[in-house]
Amino acid sequence: MTWLDLPTGDPFGLHNLPYGACARGLLVRVGSWAFDLTGAEAAGLVDAGGTLQARRLNPFLAGGRPLWTSVRRRLVELLTDPRHRAAVEPLLSPVDQVALELPFDVADYVDFYSSQEHATNLGRLLRPDQAPLLPNWKHLPIGYHGRAGTVVVSGTGIVRPCGQRATPDGPVFGPSVRLDIEAEVGFVIGVPSELGAPLSTADLIEHVFGAVLVNDWSARDIQAWEYQPLGPFLGKSFATSVSPWVVPLDALAAAKVAAPAQDPPVRPYLTEADRYGYDIRLEVRWNGTVVSHPPFAGLYWTPAQQLAHLTVNGASVRTGDLYASGTVSGPARDQVGSFMELTWGGTEPVTLADGSTRDFLADGDTVTIAASAPGPDGSVVGLGEVTGRIRPAAG
Amino acid sequence: MTWLDLPTGDPFGLHNLPYGACARGLLVRVGSWAFDLTGAEAAGLVDAGGTLQARRLNPFLAGGRPLWTSVRRRLVELLTDPRHRAAVEPLLSPVDQVALELPFDVADYVDFYSSQEHATNLGRLLRPDQAPLLPNWKHLPIGYHGRAGTVVVSGTGIVRPCGQRATPDGPVFGPSVRLDIEAEVGFVIGVPSELGAPLSTADLIEHVFGAVLVNDWSARDIQAWEYQPLGPFLGKSFATSVSPWVVPLDALAAAKVAAPAQDPPVRPYLTEADRYGYDIRLEVRWNGTVVSHPPFAGLYWTPAQQLAHLTVNGASVRTGDLYASGTVSGPARDQVGSFMELTWGGTEPVTLADGSTRDFLADGDTVTIAASAPGPDGSVVGLGEVTGRIRPAAG
Repeated sequence: MTWLDLPTGDPFGLHNLPYGACARGLLVRVGSWAFDLTGAEAAGLVDAGGTLQARRLNPFLAGGRPLWTSVRRRLVELLTDPRHRAAVEPLLSPVDQVALELPFDVADYVDFYSSQEHATNLGRLLRPDQAPLLPNWKHLPIGYHGRAGTVVVSGTGIVRPCGQRATPDGPVFGPSVRLDIEAEVGFVIGVPSELGAPLSTADLIEHVFGAVLVNDWSARDIQAWEYQPLGPFLGKSFATSVSPWVVPLDALAAAKVAAPAQDPPVRPYLTEADRYGYDIRLEVRWNGTVVSHPPFAGLYWTPAQQLAHLTVNGASVRTGDLYASGTVSGPARDQVGSFMELTWGGTEPVTLADGSTRDFLADGDTVTIAASAPGPDGSVVGLGEVTGRIRPAAG
Repeated sequence: MTWLDLPTGDPFGLHNLPYGACARGLLVRVGSWAFDLTGAEAAGLVDAGGTLQARRLNPFLAGGRPLWTSVRRRLVELLTDPRHRAAVEPLLSPVDQVALELPFDVADYVDFYSSQEHATNLGRLLRPDQAPLLPNWKHLPIGYHGRAGTVVVSGTGIVRPCGQRATPDGPVFGPSVRLDIEAEVGFVIGVPSELGAPLSTADLIEHVFGAVLVNDWSARDIQAWEYQPLGPFLGKSFATSVSPWVVPLDALAAAKVAAPAQDPPVRPYLTEADRYGYDIRLEVRWNGTVVSHPPFAGLYWTPAQQLAHLTVNGASVRTGDLYASGTVSGPARDQVGSFMELTWGGTEPVTLADGSTRDFLADGDTVTIAASAPGPDGSVVGLGEVTGRIRPAAG
């Protein structure tokens, strides 16, 4: 349908069209090409009210659904109608030749804890003497605020953090020895809300623009020592990586699936007239070896419930807010989203393709989280990947 | 010394000169006057490289110490030398006729927990079966990330948040019934740091621009139910109020006092060649009745230690980051910075001047936190105040 030479089944076909950014401005991805949106608007090919003349997506995100829809429609037109080919082609670059940047400025970053399997696994590992799931877990989507200023784009090197950790001889300071990942999916707010005015689960579609993949790097030893009573801080705040392409919710419409039933029943503000998750299938690669396939569809708390909960106390959301699902873990060992779970607290090391074994991350290791989802008419929607390589601790 | 008609001992004399913002631009306060900095720069009276042509202080904060010093020096000159009077006078407005706004855009907001007395009191109240101070508390400044997007300027109405709270019959949803304050002092980052490059305790003076008063409103019932295992979330995220005037560290130089000795000794990254706190004296007024005088000078962890800890894992700071001390509580009951402590979990209500009694906040209540510190030559540096009135829950 497009005049571009796209392979059949390309996960970045016209049904996807995710947005990104580079030093020159904003981009949309089609196949293996990055289309220069900023240039296209400057040339009069797209009219987005000037919101594409920016280094980050925020002004476009703030434009809201009518703008998102009209730009998406126009992009399909430009890439379909051969009369536009001569104007569009000079604005295409091979995607692997573009240095992608953080696609949006992150306002607030919230991380949830929405996988029952993950919460149960961590409960078993960290509090073996208690019921693994805490009493509040099935009543509300547990979450906390992370550090927005250290959200980095995929490919950014991850310096092993230093910090305090507990030992039998008391706390010691040094590089983390239990460096881990958390494979997650994050949602990006486009349209802000007012302070004091909670959003409902039905408001998702008007306020959320799209999704990215998230790796919430975690130093388990630092986290374990610091987290009582105010939660994770330095164990997480050194870096959170996100994929460079923001996939619009529009592209994920065909990936909607029924979310797990909830028992006990949730409070009215968490109910959903149309309860669904997204059938986003993650893949975790550790130095190239596929070690896990976390299933996003199985999360107990949906993105709509997370949004309603986040604002039920009157907190507002802003353009560029990122809220992530928390670690996506399924019931099987090869479906977990953290190495803490994969190696069961480091007690059951995994063997990688090169024959080496791992409990937690070693310096020089690369972790890539990739994902895709069903698209319309049997197509596949690519969410791309988020990758990072561990650098030795500083000093 | 100034040609302005300032009362002797005015806490906003030339030794203070705190910065603020209104819809027309940036301001500096002198006595009861707000001086239009944006207008002054536009008129060529001050040269700040254009950083004063903004709605918020961030570009000026990013300018760093040389800029802060030169602007401060120039302001003293303008307000001292009578030859400038004719040019400056038209740029002065009575401060009570200016609608003050949030002085800076908040990047990340971190809240520490630096008062030993507060941490001990909360431990006694919340975990009566355990040692009140957790094992990690004296080894590192405990902190967590709060919501930057709901930091509001003093005077903003505070809508009572709704949320879930635990009852003997299970969790219920509704307006918080244990709405509280936290009286704190916050520090504002001017100069950013690089990801992966920790700051030392000695870096405070180059990176931190100044201080504000903070009221971190807290719904204790929501917080108690949600906070395990990831810390406070909706119990805090509905609103955090800050004072409208950012007092430069330069104005607090005379308020430096020795900070409490630390035992056990701290890790090297938390040591200070010149260990000091600031003798900032807070006053908490509940519907006009002074109920407490929290002493900032007594905090166990200093602002310099907080900054070093915040970045020791490689996390960067950005212009506009706000990090607050945590509730300031002294050893006496009339020195505590929260009503949870003042009324001992609501069990010992206080009587206000009008004869009414309170455990936690009632709708319509107003809380004002004011503060001052010693200035040079026996003067007083005013930090102004942060105030807020409780509005009924929505719906």
